[in-house]
Amino acid sequence: MDFKQVIAANNFLFEKIIETPLLDLSSSKVLPLFPSQTRVKMKLEFLQHVGSFKARGVLLGLSRLTVEQKKAGVIAFSAGNHALAVSWAAQFLGISAKVIMPKTADKFRVEGCKTYAAEILLAEDAEEGFSLMYDLSEKEKRQVMHPFEADHMIIGAATCGLEMISSMPDMDVAIIPIGGGGLISGISSAIKLVKPSVTVFGVEPYGADSMFQSFLKKKPMVIDKVKTIADSLGAPMALPKSFELARRNVDEIVRLTDNEMVESMNIIREKLNFLVEPACGSSLAACLGPLKEKVLGKNVALIACGSNISFDRYKEIVS
Amino acid sequence: MDFKQVIAANNFLFEKIIETPLLDLSSSKVLPLFPSQTRVKMKLEFLQHVGSFKARGVLLGLSRLTVEQKKAGVIAFSAGNHALAVSWAAQFLGISAKVIMPKTADKFRVEGCKTYAAEILLAEDAEEGFSLMYDLSEKEKRQVMHPFEADHMIIGAATCGLEMISSMPDMDVAIIPIGGGGLISGISSAIKLVKPSVTVFGVEPYGADSMFQSFLKKKPMVIDKVKTIADSLGAPMALPKSFELARRNVDEIVRLTDNEMVESMNIIREKLNFLVEPACGSSLAACLGPLKEKVLGKNVALIACGSNISFDRYKEIVS
Repeated sequence: MDFKQVIAANNFLFEKIIETPLLDLSSSKVLPLFPSQTRVKMKLEFLQHVGSFKARGVLLGLSRLTVEQKKAGVIAFSAGNHALAVSWAAQFLGISAKVIMPKTADKFRVEGCKTYAAEILLAEDAEEGFSLMYDLSEKEKRQVMHPFEADHMIIGAATCGLEMISSMPDMDVAIIPIGGGGLISGISSAIKLVKPSVTVFGVEPYGADSMFQSFLKKKPMVIDKVKTIADSLGAPMALPKSFELARRNVDEIVRLTDNEMVESMNIIREKLNFLVEPACGSSLAACLGPLKEKVLGKNVALIACGSNISFDRYKEIVS
Repeated sequence: MDFKQVIAANNFLFEKIIETPLLDLSSSKVLPLFPSQTRVKMKLEFLQHVGSFKARGVLLGLSRLTVEQKKAGVIAFSAGNHALAVSWAAQFLGISAKVIMPKTADKFRVEGCKTYAAEILLAEDAEEGFSLMYDLSEKEKRQVMHPFEADHMIIGAATCGLEMISSMPDMDVAIIPIGGGGLISGISSAIKLVKPSVTVFGVEPYGADSMFQSFLKKKPMVIDKVKTIADSLGAPMALPKSFELARRNVDEIVRLTDNEMVESMNIIREKLNFLVEPACGSSLAACLGPLKEKVLGKNVALIACGSNISFDRYKEIVS
C-alpha cells in the first residue's frame, strides 16, 4: 500500500463516509484515568455509518466492482459489523446483496441489516453459513465480500488512520484492536506512511489471539478455538495480506482478558456516557492495562472502532 | 448581555473549558429519523467537564469573586449537575466549597462530587438543604452560587451558544431545554446576537413547565409542583433575569411528556450509543415530537446539554 492509494480512497470516500470526531479525553471525568503528562484522544468511529469502520472498506470494495459484478451482486457471511456494512453499502450503491448471518447473531444487528435493502438469510452455524455463501456465490455469480482480507478493506481502514494522524500530528502512540487484522493493517500503514516514528500497538483478546500467535511464529496462524466476549475481535485466523502489513507496521501486540474489556466498557459508560460493545472498549482497556507503563508521557491515539450491541446483551455482559 | 461580554467570557474560558463536538446526525443509523432535507446537528455538551454545560458558568462565576470572597469560599445546594460543577470549579481555582445535596440525590452524582475537593453535606430534603445553605453562608461568609439566576451562569451558557452558531453558520433552528432558564437564556442570546434570523425553541417537561407558564402570564411564575423524570429540568420557578432574556430571544416553548423523553433516550442509545439522562435527550425528543413539522427542511441545532446518571437509575427509567 502506498500513500497515493490511501489518498485516492480518501478522496473517493469524501462526503460518503463520516469523518468521525477524535475526542480529547481531557474532561474532568475522564482525565484522572491517565497519568499526568499522558494525553489521550479517542477516535469515535462507532459514529460512522452502520456504527463501525467496516463501512469505509466495504463501500470502497463495492464501488470497485466491474459493471458485470455489480449487476450480479454480492454475498457475505457475518454475525456482525461486516454484515451491516455490506447491507448498507450495497443499498447505497444500488447493488443486490445477500447477507448470511448465524442464527445466534445479536438480534440488534440482524434488525439493523434488515433496515437496508439486503436480503438476510439465517444459517444454523458458521459451517452452514459459509457453505451457503459459497453455493450462492457460484450459483448466482455473486462476488464474495471478505470481512478483512482484501485490499479495499485494508485501504478503507487506512483512511481512518489518515484522519487520525492528520488531526493529531503530535501522535506518539496508537493502540488499535485486532480482529482479523484488516483494521490494524490499514491504520498502522497509513499512520507510518505519514509519521514513521509513531509506535503502533495491537490489541487482541487472550481468547482470540490469532495475530499474536502469528507474530510469534512469523507466519499467519489458525487458532484452535475462539473464546472471548469481544465477538467482533473473534477471528480464528490471520491471513497473509493483512498479516504481512501488520508485521511491517505494528510494533507489538498485547492481549486482554474479558474482565479487562468489561472494566473498560464500564469506564467508558461512566466517564464518557458511551455504551459500547467489548471490541470497541479494547483500545482503552489496553491503554489502562498492559500498556500502562508504555504510554507514560506520550500522546496516545485510541480508537472506539465500532459498536452494534443490543441493550440486553450489554446488560448481560456488564452486570 | 452584549457580544463583548460573551467574547470576553469565551476568551477567559479558552482551554479551561472543552469545546465540545457538534455532531452531524447523518450516519446511516440516525439519518432516517429525520425527514429528507432536514439537517440536524447535536452539540455533545455531556462531554464537557463534570459532564454538563454548568461547568462553563460556574467556573466563570467563581473566577469573578473578589479576593475576599475567594478566601471565604462558596456554598451551593443542588441535587445534580450544578453540585458537580461547583465542586469541580472550586477545586480548579483552589477555592473552598461546601456543597449541600439532598439525601435522595443520585449516588452517581454524590460520588462524582466527592472526587473533587468540595465538602459534601447531605440534607433530608430541599427545605433543610436551602436552610442549611443560608445558615452556613451567613456564618462562614460563603458566597451562595445560584444554579441559574446569575449573569455568570447565563454568559457561561452563552459561550456554548457561540460555539454552536460559529460551527454551524447555516443554522435555521435551535432547540434548547429549559430547567431554570440559565441555559436557554444564554444560548439563545448568543445565537441571536450572531444570527438574529435563527428560530429558538425552548423545551420543558409538562411536569415542570415554569417557563411555559411564565411566557403565558408574561411574568416569572412559580408552579405548584414538579413532576417529571427529567430531574435536571425540574426547576419549580422562573426568575426575572433569565425570564427576561428568554422572553426576548426564545420564539416558542413546547412541552414534552415523560414518555417522549424516554423514547428519545432509547433512540439516542440505539442510534448513537450514548447513554444519557432524560434532560439530555429532551432536545431531540422535541425535534422528533412537537416540533416535527416546524423543523421540516431546516438546519437544526440540538444540544445534549449534560448527563450524570447512574446506570441503575438509567435502567429503571428506560425499562
